[in-house]
Amino acid sequence: MEPKDIQQSTEAELTYSATKTGDRSILPADMISVEEARAQILSTMSPLNTVDCSLEQSLGLVLAEDIYSDLDIPPHPNTGMDGYAVRAEDTKNASYSEPTNLTVIGYLPAGAVFEGKVSDGQAVRIMTGAPMPDGADAVVPFEETDEYDWDTRESSRLAGDWEQNPKNSVRIDVEAKPGANIRLAGEDIKDGVLVLREGTVVGAPEIGVLASLGVNSVKCIRRPVVAILSTGDELVRPGSSLAPGQIYDANSYSLAAQVTAFGGEALVLDVSKDTVEALTLNINEGLKEADLLVTSAGVSRGDFDVVKTVLAQQGEIGFWTVRMKPGKPLAFGVLEGSEGKQVPHLGLPGNPVSAMMTFELFGRPAVFKLAGRLITNADGWERPRVTAIAGDRLKNTDGRRFYARCLLEKEPEGLIARLTGSQGSGVLTSMMLADGYAICPEDKDSI
Amino acid sequence: MEPKDIQQSTEAELTYSATKTGDRSILPADMISVEEARAQILSTMSPLNTVDCSLEQSLGLVLAEDIYSDLDIPPHPNTGMDGYAVRAEDTKNASYSEPTNLTVIGYLPAGAVFEGKVSDGQAVRIMTGAPMPDGADAVVPFEETDEYDWDTRESSRLAGDWEQNPKNSVRIDVEAKPGANIRLAGEDIKDGVLVLREGTVVGAPEIGVLASLGVNSVKCIRRPVVAILSTGDELVRPGSSLAPGQIYDANSYSLAAQVTAFGGEALVLDVSKDTVEALTLNINEGLKEADLLVTSAGVSRGDFDVVKTVLAQQGEIGFWTVRMKPGKPLAFGVLEGSEGKQVPHLGLPGNPVSAMMTFELFGRPAVFKLAGRLITNADGWERPRVTAIAGDRLKNTDGRRFYARCLLEKEPEGLIARLTGSQGSGVLTSMMLADGYAICPEDKDSI
Repeated sequence: MEPKDIQQSTEAELTYSATKTGDRSILPADMISVEEARAQILSTMSPLNTVDCSLEQSLGLVLAEDIYSDLDIPPHPNTGMDGYAVRAEDTKNASYSEPTNLTVIGYLPAGAVFEGKVSDGQAVRIMTGAPMPDGADAVVPFEETDEYDWDTRESSRLAGDWEQNPKNSVRIDVEAKPGANIRLAGEDIKDGVLVLREGTVVGAPEIGVLASLGVNSVKCIRRPVVAILSTGDELVRPGSSLAPGQIYDANSYSLAAQVTAFGGEALVLDVSKDTVEALTLNINEGLKEADLLVTSAGVSRGDFDVVKTVLAQQGEIGFWTVRMKPGKPLAFGVLEGSEGKQVPHLGLPGNPVSAMMTFELFGRPAVFKLAGRLITNADGWERPRVTAIAGDRLKNTDGRRFYARCLLEKEPEGLIARLTGSQGSGVLTSMMLADGYAICPEDKDSI
Repeated sequence: MEPKDIQQSTEAELTYSATKTGDRSILPADMISVEEARAQILSTMSPLNTVDCSLEQSLGLVLAEDIYSDLDIPPHPNTGMDGYAVRAEDTKNASYSEPTNLTVIGYLPAGAVFEGKVSDGQAVRIMTGAPMPDGADAVVPFEETDEYDWDTRESSRLAGDWEQNPKNSVRIDVEAKPGANIRLAGEDIKDGVLVLREGTVVGAPEIGVLASLGVNSVKCIRRPVVAILSTGDELVRPGSSLAPGQIYDANSYSLAAQVTAFGGEALVLDVSKDTVEALTLNINEGLKEADLLVTSAGVSRGDFDVVKTVLAQQGEIGFWTVRMKPGKPLAFGVLEGSEGKQVPHLGLPGNPVSAMMTFELFGRPAVFKLAGRLITNADGWERPRVTAIAGDRLKNTDGRRFYARCLLEKEPEGLIARLTGSQGSGVLTSMMLADGYAICPEDKDSI
């Protein structure tokens, strides 16, 4: 065999030579773009039902209700620092060289409320988070008082100490502006406002906001369960030994990991032998629990496998030839589960790279849609894009969109994208080494 | 109170006015940059011990061993398509108008091995993944044979059918090049090569590669357990009602969600009252299980809380003033757990935004280091950076690095970064709405 260009897979080779005499391998009626395939798949799906979640469980899920505040945050004007609550006018012109002295009338830890009122020449010793006492309109931090002195501060560190040896007077070393170090009531969130909208993806800051509102349970759209079925007589689970002709099942594991990474819950079914009985049994097992059934292998146009036959018996199924590489053959339909439940089915090619790449392009948006992540952002499945210089020549001769696995490197002339070795659809290491994929359009024969 | 600029928090205000007379709030000896603080924190940590993981468990963890292949993948030259294994020279000059006929000498499903040899004028019907029979050097897919005819293919779909009605002859419609549609032995991975290096973060493609090698268990660095302790007499768990002066504990929840998002396992401890007994009890509870203890509140310079006293009793602890905003006060030390176990402790400020931001800048790299994620990539904790035009004026008058929460929008003139409302350190919604943060350097007073 002759050495080949890096991007020229053996699969592409014959397709290319066939194209010269008439390209019988693609029936025009079945040809479909990546966008058309994705739109058809997504059109059959809706966000799943909702569940009540603890804050911990809600991370990464989509909120299924609007959340209104029923309190001000902070609830009262309070101090943002440890120090003395004062009347700003009493500190006028105070400085390190000419400080002013105030009478200390109380001590206020966080969580306590001062019952009295701060009048002319008075101050209240106050801890971060404590509500401002009536009459005071500024806080002077310890550092700007005689507590700046280390020894004084050491002895005042424990509440008990201070309460046993209260100070009657405090030296103020700076002029405080009205409002200084005070957090206003409702500064963060006002009572009655809409804080989080239905459709929001719950992240760490949202969880913090919910907790600060006193909310400990929210309605979220449930995590989609994705059943994964590898089919093929030649497949063996890792951990056992191979007989001649057999290979290890990689797709169950890589697809399950993708499901998890996309925010779904993976349900890996037994590898299915290519018999009607085995397949029917496994598919029905998957349909019991699954919100989406993903199979790999058995959907190629020329494919011998029984997968198509069994799928056709279970529901409506379409076999598509998608103008993409790796990938191309794809099946999609809606199967009938138990009690009439409709379960979308995505049939991926068997090659490990094709399976992962088609699941990235079609399965990821599907999981996102079921999880409600596209409610407020229809393009929310899109990966970030960067512009980079092609560091290798990409050839793309067969009219399909080519998703080339690339490694990005920062070089003086800019970001360079280089191919991760052989791009054959069996070569899973090309995926492993990649930072992303470069997209070569259908109508472009080289980059 | 006068209306304030959006970025001017009340906290900044007094610090600024104090600076005019001498800035006593920062002792030069305690001043530390974000980088210095991070370097000191990370220098006390090493990757945790290793555990044996199933492939499913390994997702997101770091590999603690080199993985060598002990087989070729694919193991034998095999077909990448369903079709006929042929001798390429027998198809010379074949075309749709002048096809050639070959004698079919066998049927080979995936997983089976053909015992005979393909000689002149012969072909073997072969399914994707099946090893190439001796003598054959190319595969012609069904589409390029008389099986292209739909009726023929329908009847040939089930193995049983074909085996009961074998074809003796096949029409070949194209010329195949030697090697066409054949995947070579070892095309993806060769026997004996180093496939995955120690220190690799296991993602979906790595899991696929491990499975395809037959590996079902790998040594990984264990997921770090991060204990989280909110301290403060004023704190109440969400779900209960507030007495005057009390607020809901947000930090336990937002920090726990950050831990999960960073790949750690969060262990949320009871909210601790500000007494030596309560704190000591809670901290010791956390030290039992934790690889890192994170507290919030109680570490400010002027702080009254007992947190510092208790921490000082448990181990060596430093209190830092970091030149950053939000944030600034930070405690770090190594505490003594049960049986002499050394547990790093990160003491965050109590304000919800400061707590999240300092945990992002210091806790995230710490979790990454414990998880082994910095073994092969010391900067692996860095977030992606984009260049954007400032859509709002940022003022930064107090010599600290300002991490401003921003929303990014694509506009004709480029990417625009706008502030997410008030940047006060209590205003958690500023974090929730943000796509990222803009960094205003210490020595720059406006952007």
